[in-house]
Amino acid sequence: MFQTSIYQNRRGILSKNIQDGILVFPANRELGMNFADNVYHFRQDSTFLYYFGIDQPDIVGVLDTDTGEEIIFGDELSIDAIIWMGALETLASKCEKAGIKDVRPKKELAPFLEKAKRNQAIHYLPPYRHDIQIDLSLWLDLPINLVNKKASIPFIKAVVAQRSIKEEVELVELRKAVDITNQMHLKAMEMAQPGVEEAEIAAELQRIAQASGGQLSFPSIVTKNGEILHNHYHGNTLKEGDLLLVDAGAETAMHYAGDMSRTMPVGGKFSQRQKEIFEVVYGAHQTAIEGLRPGERFLDRHLAAAAALTDGLKDLGLMKGDTQEAVAAGAHTLFFQCGLGHMMGLDVHDMENLGEEYVGYTDTLQKSKEFGLKSLRLGKELEKGYVITIEPGIYFIPQLIDQWKANKHLEQFINYDVVETYKDFGGIRQEEDFVITDNGYELLGEEIAKTVEAVEKEVSR
Amino acid sequence: MFQTSIYQNRRGILSKNIQDGILVFPANRELGMNFADNVYHFRQDSTFLYYFGIDQPDIVGVLDTDTGEEIIFGDELSIDAIIWMGALETLASKCEKAGIKDVRPKKELAPFLEKAKRNQAIHYLPPYRHDIQIDLSLWLDLPINLVNKKASIPFIKAVVAQRSIKEEVELVELRKAVDITNQMHLKAMEMAQPGVEEAEIAAELQRIAQASGGQLSFPSIVTKNGEILHNHYHGNTLKEGDLLLVDAGAETAMHYAGDMSRTMPVGGKFSQRQKEIFEVVYGAHQTAIEGLRPGERFLDRHLAAAAALTDGLKDLGLMKGDTQEAVAAGAHTLFFQCGLGHMMGLDVHDMENLGEEYVGYTDTLQKSKEFGLKSLRLGKELEKGYVITIEPGIYFIPQLIDQWKANKHLEQFINYDVVETYKDFGGIRQEEDFVITDNGYELLGEEIAKTVEAVEKEVSR
Repeated sequence: MFQTSIYQNRRGILSKNIQDGILVFPANRELGMNFADNVYHFRQDSTFLYYFGIDQPDIVGVLDTDTGEEIIFGDELSIDAIIWMGALETLASKCEKAGIKDVRPKKELAPFLEKAKRNQAIHYLPPYRHDIQIDLSLWLDLPINLVNKKASIPFIKAVVAQRSIKEEVELVELRKAVDITNQMHLKAMEMAQPGVEEAEIAAELQRIAQASGGQLSFPSIVTKNGEILHNHYHGNTLKEGDLLLVDAGAETAMHYAGDMSRTMPVGGKFSQRQKEIFEVVYGAHQTAIEGLRPGERFLDRHLAAAAALTDGLKDLGLMKGDTQEAVAAGAHTLFFQCGLGHMMGLDVHDMENLGEEYVGYTDTLQKSKEFGLKSLRLGKELEKGYVITIEPGIYFIPQLIDQWKANKHLEQFINYDVVETYKDFGGIRQEEDFVITDNGYELLGEEIAKTVEAVEKEVSR
Repeated sequence: MFQTSIYQNRRGILSKNIQDGILVFPANRELGMNFADNVYHFRQDSTFLYYFGIDQPDIVGVLDTDTGEEIIFGDELSIDAIIWMGALETLASKCEKAGIKDVRPKKELAPFLEKAKRNQAIHYLPPYRHDIQIDLSLWLDLPINLVNKKASIPFIKAVVAQRSIKEEVELVELRKAVDITNQMHLKAMEMAQPGVEEAEIAAELQRIAQASGGQLSFPSIVTKNGEILHNHYHGNTLKEGDLLLVDAGAETAMHYAGDMSRTMPVGGKFSQRQKEIFEVVYGAHQTAIEGLRPGERFLDRHLAAAAALTDGLKDLGLMKGDTQEAVAAGAHTLFFQCGLGHMMGLDVHDMENLGEEYVGYTDTLQKSKEFGLKSLRLGKELEKGYVITIEPGIYFIPQLIDQWKANKHLEQFINYDVVETYKDFGGIRQEEDFVITDNGYELLGEEIAKTVEAVEKEVSR
């Protein structure tokens, strides 16, 4: 946990921002895999961690913004439980570290809310866990299918405003996460040799994250089919000439995320074609980074990267026509179907459960519904303290190419005959993590191999 | 997947055993860790796997035992989803491999059940996932807190009867799981050296399980505090003289479990005291195994192991008095607080979600409520084809010793003065997996180091 005052300050600011009613923060529970007691690794809710820091299941935080009351509802271990689980730190002690003295049995929560809701508004965030949906449905006497719709927008907005600006103590944790993530990617490069199975590399990445005392921040992508954007299949064996795309990150013991991608040549040498596409992605990556500063819209960095990709693909004969017109028409989305990046913090897609319309956009800048832009999670102006990823890529998706080509879609910008010859290429992505500073940006962690030469060298060690 | 006929046969037997109404099998869903789309590794429901073999989330199997109809409700991937997830095998193709031709869109399930429930009984198993509780509540118009109470006992009993007797194809998978589990334990022994962190070993065990294409079958216990029975803390660094208790297992790609325990001396040499307790546990382990055969009550093997432990502890001066009387009084439970073992199969505690009263006991042999015996998951007569674990242990739990001693509990059987000197000892467990054969038992997999000498040798390699 951080110092007590950190949590107290955060809650104080939140209370002041809401100034009406009761805020309810359900911690996460353990979740059974194949039966109730065979559980996945416990992951606390990130907003709960942010305001309370207590990494324990099955407790609920309550802030009364009218009276200033701060309560944790939860139960101490019984002597029976101590026999099975050891003498753990008491809940009361953890609460004290979070600056909370009022700890009550869990069974008192329902009557507490029952009484409070007669006179006060009850605010909660939209739950992404089904057990919490059931809890809220029962506590607040709401039909289960209305629970998420009735989540509090003022609460969401106040949390987003706070969590978006990373404090210095958070940046220290985020740099740790990136340091471990760097080790993972360097190891993947070392292992990218013919005959190695994707599953072996994925397992080794998880080992590194766990051996550091944390976890993975998301399920690793380790694939020779990098064109499949969310590919969690690890069943292939690598062979000379393959590209291996690795998108993986560590989560520290305090649950801050890293998230990076590298694409590497199996065996250590990019082919001419691989090198050319790699350098287009690299160029777009650098273009995107250069403009990072407070006040810059992330949407504009996305479009700048799209233009750089388009220029590069024109040079290689895959695209044609005026770059700005091509980007405006979305022609680049045949190759770059997703967004340039996203916020990162306690969640790898930070605060995604609170809604992209609040985290990445504003009342005046709303998310586009167009193919490509609809996958851009962050569009609004950057502020000092935002932590973001930059991750342009080029992906040759055979089904998409076939579909567009059959419809002659945007053929004024695309040389389909040339594109056709890339259908077995796969995909390339490069991703790093940045914090926005007073005048620009800072890379989190050390820079590891990202040029053709540097990546080839790491693979060939 | 196994051959189509395996699933067809299993469903045929089940239908015949129930012969009334509709059986509903909800597959598991993906579960979000810290937001909906950041998911834990997918784990299919084991009963769904047993009858359908389809390892895909968010589908539902329905068997009509009156008409013989067999349906899978679920949706094929959209072209949009293919862009993000690649061209995966279609649901229709997977269903065909399971012997099911009738595949319908998921949205048709609710009206189907709505109609069916007017004329037919709807059977379902008790859900351990909250999303499935919500589904059943909505489909069957049941208050959420009644869903588990209304689960079908005939369905539970019929599934338990089938899944308890392992088929030859299942034994092949279980042996694979144990083979990988053996590798994990041998690696733990190799790593059990001063200066190594528990977390490093735990991470390596997970790596081995995953690199084999599977997962862990349960969260690993890797601890120098072996007296804490369900200890998932991995924050200690090992030092010379520590005991390291490892209880861990692999799950194969087809989701069959292994589950073994070994206790090893950090650095390679047991102390005299450690050796003595180790050998008592070893002796009880061998005693338990010797009597394994069809018709033998597992409860009696548990009591035989308890007697062997008591004899051993008497020899060491920790216990005293008549062994049978001590066991009958539960005096051994100061040291052996849990059960001798459990069923194993698609779940590491096989079918635990269906209820121990059906899996481990019968109408005439009900589970004891006494301390110790209440933790014995399996009591009933063994049958050919049962797969079980044998895992006696001795655990010195300071809080429990203090509590008993303060109450002079069973002091006619316990030399508290001697026990007092063992309060910092920790715990020792030894665990292997067996299948019951025509006349006895067979160890699953190869036997790995289990004597004092053999374990010391593995650690010292």
